[in-house]
This record gives sequence, C-alpha cells and structure tokens, in this order.
Amino acid sequence: MKIKLYLTSLLFTTLLFSQSEDSKMIKNIYDASLLNGKSYEWLNHLSNQIGGRLSGSYNAEKAVKYTKEQLEQLGLDRVWLQPVMVPKWVRGAKEYAYVETAPGKSTMMPICALGGSVATPTGGLKAELIEVQSFDELDALGTSKIAGKIVFYNRPMQAELISTFNAYGGCVEQRYKGAEKAIAYGAVGVIVRSLNLRLDDFPHTGSMTYGEIPVSNRIPAAAISTNAAELLSGMLQLDPKIKFYFSQHCKQLKDVQSYNVIGEITGSAYPNKVMVVGGHLDSWDLGDGAHDDGAGVVQSMEVLRLLKQTGYKPKHTVRVVLFMNEENGLRGGKKYAKVAAEKSENHVFALESDSGGFTPRGFSFDCSDENFEKVVSWKSLFKPYLIHYFEKGGSGADVGPLKGDNVLCGLRPDSQRYFDHHHAANDTFEHVNKRELELGAATMTSLMYLFDKYGVIQNSKIKK
Amino acid sequence: MKIKLYLTSLLFTTLLFSQSEDSKMIKNIYDASLLNGKSYEWLNHLSNQIGGRLSGSYNAEKAVKYTKEQLEQLGLDRVWLQPVMVPKWVRGAKEYAYVETAPGKSTMMPICALGGSVATPTGGLKAELIEVQSFDELDALGTSKIAGKIVFYNRPMQAELISTFNAYGGCVEQRYKGAEKAIAYGAVGVIVRSLNLRLDDFPHTGSMTYGEIPVSNRIPAAAISTNAAELLSGMLQLDPKIKFYFSQHCKQLKDVQSYNVIGEITGSAYPNKVMVVGGHLDSWDLGDGAHDDGAGVVQSMEVLRLLKQTGYKPKHTVRVVLFMNEENGLRGGKKYAKVAAEKSENHVFALESDSGGFTPRGFSFDCSDENFEKVVSWKSLFKPYLIHYFEKGGSGADVGPLKGDNVLCGLRPDSQRYFDHHHAANDTFEHVNKRELELGAATMTSLMYLFDKYGVIQNSKIKK
Repeated sequence: MKIKLYLTSLLFTTLLFSQSEDSKMIKNIYDASLLNGKSYEWLNHLSNQIGGRLSGSYNAEKAVKYTKEQLEQLGLDRVWLQPVMVPKWVRGAKEYAYVETAPGKSTMMPICALGGSVATPTGGLKAELIEVQSFDELDALGTSKIAGKIVFYNRPMQAELISTFNAYGGCVEQRYKGAEKAIAYGAVGVIVRSLNLRLDDFPHTGSMTYGEIPVSNRIPAAAISTNAAELLSGMLQLDPKIKFYFSQHCKQLKDVQSYNVIGEITGSAYPNKVMVVGGHLDSWDLGDGAHDDGAGVVQSMEVLRLLKQTGYKPKHTVRVVLFMNEENGLRGGKKYAKVAAEKSENHVFALESDSGGFTPRGFSFDCSDENFEKVVSWKSLFKPYLIHYFEKGGSGADVGPLKGDNVLCGLRPDSQRYFDHHHAANDTFEHVNKRELELGAATMTSLMYLFDKYGVIQNSKIKK
Repeated sequence: MKIKLYLTSLLFTTLLFSQSEDSKMIKNIYDASLLNGKSYEWLNHLSNQIGGRLSGSYNAEKAVKYTKEQLEQLGLDRVWLQPVMVPKWVRGAKEYAYVETAPGKSTMMPICALGGSVATPTGGLKAELIEVQSFDELDALGTSKIAGKIVFYNRPMQAELISTFNAYGGCVEQRYKGAEKAIAYGAVGVIVRSLNLRLDDFPHTGSMTYGEIPVSNRIPAAAISTNAAELLSGMLQLDPKIKFYFSQHCKQLKDVQSYNVIGEITGSAYPNKVMVVGGHLDSWDLGDGAHDDGAGVVQSMEVLRLLKQTGYKPKHTVRVVLFMNEENGLRGGKKYAKVAAEKSENHVFALESDSGGFTPRGFSFDCSDENFEKVVSWKSLFKPYLIHYFEKGGSGADVGPLKGDNVLCGLRPDSQRYFDHHHAANDTFEHVNKRELELGAATMTSLMYLFDKYGVIQNSKIKK
C-alpha cells in the first residue's frame, strides 16, 4: 500500500512537473510569435510584393525563390527545392458577361472563369439559361430541356451549418463537376453560383474537371457572384427566355517545371523520423492568396523559426514543406509523398494549415485512437490560448498522400469568414489580422513540440 | 439495489430526454438566427442610416426612436422608454496636430480629443513633449521636468496577452486618468497612445476624467494613432526639444434628456422575476458604432425576436434593455438599476453583449458557485456551436449595477480584432460579419432559454 502510494505520488509529481515544463515552453512559443513573429512580415511580402501565385506563373516562381531565401536565413540544417511538374492554366483577358432581357437591353454580370475551363468561342457565347439547384434536377430535366442552353447552378451554401467547410462541401460539386454533368445533356456553357455565404459582388473561382470528356466537346464554365446569382434567378422567374452572354479567354498550356520548397532541422535523437508542417505556395490568381494559402505558408515557416528562437532542439527531424499546386492538381503533395516513399522515409507526423489565417480554434486529426488519446491529454495545456477544438476528421489536401501509420492533422481556425474571401479578388493581405495569424503559428508550433517530445505511437508501439 | 438501479435509470432517461429536447430547441434558435435573422438588417440601419450615436446627440435620439419602433413590431407584451438625463459632450470642428522639428518644418499627426476633454486655448497649444510609459515614471520626473510640457503617454498594449481585453485593462488608465495625473505636475496638455494593438493611422477616443480638478485648471487631452505614437517617440529620441501643436474644439454642454429603450415578454409562470438582456445604444462619434455597441443592441433585440419566432413562451419575464450612455457616464445602467430597486423588481438574470459582433466563444459569469455549476452542466449543449468558454469573471458595465443575489453575465466573442476598431473611425458596419453577429445572438438566446427553463438559484434555493 505504501509503495503504491509512493509510486502514485511520484507519477503525479512527474506529471505535474512535465505539465509545468510544457506550459512554460508553450508560453515561450506564444510570446515569441506575438512579440517577435516573422509570419506577418513574410505574408506582406508574399501578398503585396509578389501577389497571386497560380501554378506555373511567374509569381509562383518568385514565391519559390523568396521563400527558399527566407528559409535559408533561418539557419536550418538543410533547405532545398524538390522539382515537380505542374499544370499551367492561364486566365487571359478579363471575362465579360451580361444578361439580355430584350434586344439592346442588358445588365452586366460579374463572372470569372473556373480554373481549368476552356474559353468561350471567339466573340463569346449567348444562349438561354436553365437554372437548377442539383444534379438530380438536371437529370430530371434531361436533354430536351437542356440542349443548347447554359446551365445555371444556383444551389446556395447552407447558412445553418456552423462549420462553413461543411457548407462548402455540400455545394462544391456544382463547381467541380457541373460542366461534365451538363455536357452529357447538350448544354453549351455553365454558370455556377459562387461558393460564398455572403451576398456580394465577387465571383469566386476554383478548380473544375471535365472528367474523360475530349477537348473538342468541352464547354466553358464560369462562376458568378452571389448577388448576381440572386438577381439572375429573379430575372429568370420573370422571364425564362432571357439570354446570357459571356466571353472568357482562358487556356490550358503545357505542364511546366516548378518546385516544392523544403527546409529542415535534423532530429537530435531520431533523424530518420520526419515530422512535416506545411501549407501550399500556389494560390488562385484573382486576389493575392493571403488567406489561401499565404497564411499557411508563413505559419509553417514560422513553426521552424519559433522552435529555433525558443532554443528547442527537436528529437525528430522537423521539416517545413511549401507545397506547389494544391489548387489545381495537387502535384506537389503527390510528388512529396512519392519521393518520401521511394526514400523509405518514416513520416510520423504531418500538419497542414490551409483553412485561412483566422483565430485558431484547434485541430482535426486523422490518426489512431491511441494517438488521439495523447492529444486529448494535452488539452489543458492549450486552454490559456482558447484552443479547444480537438476532433477526429480530415487533415489537409497536401499532407493527405502521406497517410499511413502516422498522425496527420490540420489546423482549424475560425471558419466564419473564410468563404467571404476564398478564391476571390478580396483574398488579400488586409483581410488577415496579424494577431490571428500569429496565434495560429504558435498553436501549430506547440502541437509540433508536444508530438516531438512525447512521440507518435506507430503500430501501437511508441517509435520515437 | 434494484430500486436504486431503477431510479438511476429513470434519472438518466429524464436527463437524456431533456438534453435532447434542449438540443432541439437550441438548434431551432441557431437555425432561425442564421437563416432568417433580423440582427444584421437592424445593424445596417443603426450604422448606415443613423451612424455614430454619442449621448445627447441627434443621432442618439434617432436610435431611441428607431429601436423602439422595431421592438414594437415584434409583438412584445410591452415596449417603453425610461427617461434618463445624460451628459452632452461635443467634439466640434475636427482636431488638428503636428510636430514641429524646426521652425517651419512640421509633420501632421492624426489625433482626436478624448471624450470629456476640454478644448485647447483658441489658436491651439504648442509645447515640448515629455514621453512616459507609466504614472510611476511621471511621478519620478516630477514638476521640474513636466511643468509647461505636454505629457505623451506611450505605453503600448501588451501583445502577448491572449485576451485583448486584458491588454486594454493594462493601459486604459493612461487615457482615463492621464490628464488628472499630469495636471498635478503642471503639464499643459496630454497626448495618449491609442488603445489599439495594431499599428495604423486611426486615433481612438474614449472617456477620461479630471477627477475633482476645477474647470479652470483642466488641460486638453487627445489620443494619437499608434503609427504616429511610434513616429513621435522616434523623433523625440533624435531631438527631445521638438514641439507638438494641437488644437481641438470640444465642449461639455448641459445634461440633456434621453432614454433607455425597453421591451418585454411577460413571464408565463413568474412574471415578477425578470431576466434582462441588453447592450448600449450610445456609441462614440468617430465611426458608426457597429461593433461598440450596435452589435450588442441588435443581438439583444434578436434574443426576444428569436424566442418569439421559435414559439417559446418564457416562464420568467424576459426584458431587452438598450442602455443609453454607457460610454461616458453609465447613466442608463445606473438609472435602470435604481428604478428596478425602487419597484422591488427581482432581477434573477442579466446578460450583456458589449464586446463586439465577432464569433462568440462563450460567456463570463458573475454569480454563485451553485449557478455556475448549472452553467457548466450545459456545456455539452453548446459544443456543436463551438461555444466553449464558460468562466467566472466580469459581466458588463450596464448590467453591473444590478449585482445582487442573481446571475450576471457577458457574451465573450473572439477578442482579437476588437481593439482594431474600438472607439475609432473604422468601427463601421462593413467590419461586422453577418454570420458572426447572428451566431452571437443565437448563443445569447440559448443561454437565456436554459436559465429561463431551469431557473436561477437565489439564496441557495431555486426561486424560479
């Protein structure tokens, strides 16, 4: 009995001691990020000196060069570029669209081509519209009602869902597969309501697919702002015969050479066990990609800088990966995972930040129950920072291909304003708050620190 | 043993049933707010059709009239105005300030008079500056170093504090008592660094006091933007002899008649037990007061509208109070509590929203341990809405005077961006996100519902 009591008390003391040691380390991390952080300055450069970084563009190249240089200044053990071929889609001249309610009477409509779309025929395209809210509705209408028309997908995001990512998930098929589905019924074009919960005048682009449809049969697809979608729908109720005109000049060119940007601190105890943190360096072209995913890029860089600044020597190899081409191909994420497999690298942990630079709320985890239990045991360490969300779920697109016997996770910031800016011209630097960005970086660093210190359970055995 | 088991199981079933009933009700509340809310429309009117609502101003009168009309349209049991005399301070012509580095060489500085300050002498005031970070520093310098100078209070808010309200609390004495302290050492004016964590060009006003100092001895006090404060501090390091000029034309007029706006749903079971929800109708004059406290006003109105829309009949009398004059006098809050005491009204619960219209995180409570335990038992009901913060602490300035044997609480939204806008020209409608505002209203309504249903413990006995 006495021995048991003694052991319990010893265990308790050890736990208390390490909790307080961890608390101190985490406080140091947050202080360093909020008082002397670099993330905001980096984001300013990426956003305002470089701008939108579409895969294959000159800006994307500049971003590769800039972030590599910045990582080199951090005194990491190794910084390198990992070659990856990426698709190159270009928007060309600005799109133009109007509704014709009578010959000579027209109303301008803000649209933008979807990423991967073909251009309209020279001189543009004019046709009647058919409005649908779902693929089921499209199927029910069939070729007789659809052929020769422009399909107008107008299902709004569900405002009652608390996570805006769930609302996005419920609507994104309209944008991604809308053209492929409409082609089957002889449609000549596609207009999609922007994936935005707010009513405003910004069209939101994003990737789309034509599936296996040959180039000659493809039809142009564009997004329309939510305000214009509401207006258009109202006009169609008054007169279903109104015509919609749009012209766009986008083009898919040949793949070009690009790079993932990588830097690492070699592990002091387990150099062959890798822990990755990353975001994606490419962005859409309409804004400057500050939230998607400039924020994730600079936060990931900041994780390594904060570990160095606080004097922490990681046991595992800690690697930052700035992935290229998340938006329209995921080539960077796939290439990184492929090379890792070829080299038999053991990636025990990978964390992605790709949900905007808003106030962090926590993380979502794709991992075993044992590893998740560890995370839950750390909850109280995060409480002073109002980090409360620790749930099982997805991680991030770029780290997804690393899935295996490891921990994958994604930072989960407050999601309410994310789709106000996502893929639109107002995804710009001034909509990122410095403190919110820095809190995210500190939260990521703290989780990285805890997993480095306490290890990841693989095959139900701790393999540090 | 069997009986015990049966009772436990009965209790468990009852708990489960009521949890699920409460879950449904709370889901209805959130749905109604996010899908058919009125709060954003009301805020648009208050902000863009009325604007800044300084106590005693014509706009404040308009806001009284507008909100009373809107409450009348909700079909409440009673809507009325409660008279309250308020101070009337006016800014007058826009302030003007510059630093003179040499005769004829000057740099403009963005300033604004602090609320309650006197004007500068006709033609303005020019003097050398003395920069301090604290009252201790001021005391150490003493009259010999301070007399005839302008005191420049430049202690920045602490960026490492996670709650920006704590950072505000650590600095606000410079604004509130800075002039009173400086007068004791013969200063001729006061310039205060704006209470803003961000570096930008907006001066932030706010209330100040002269204590018992007679009118003839008062000196003018103004806030300077954070960017200008940094610049000024740098200039002073280069040359402590530079002079600062400012002119302002503000004036304290006689008290005028104004009103708290009140509406109520009479309780079906306990009409004499009152539950209050409120925000303050007045604001500073530089912006349109959308976050401070237009948001709290429309959220409080929305609580009653949501209870009606969801068909809930409160057992207690539920009252919305739109307090007048929180910013520079708290006359509305004091008057409301005084009348309540005179009428021996039993206020069992009061909730204030006065921390901006940002994503809600939870509540802070000023109540007994027994009542707080109840709140904690409801935590899981709020989890789907990512509401996680339930802590003991302050409530709100306007409901503070109701303190007694009851529950006082304050909505606690995400605080990171609050002081970017607080009391400045950029506290405007476009900085309030519709969803964030609506989530706040739904969160407040849900708490109100639970306290109405399960009662407040007074004198350690449940008095519904």
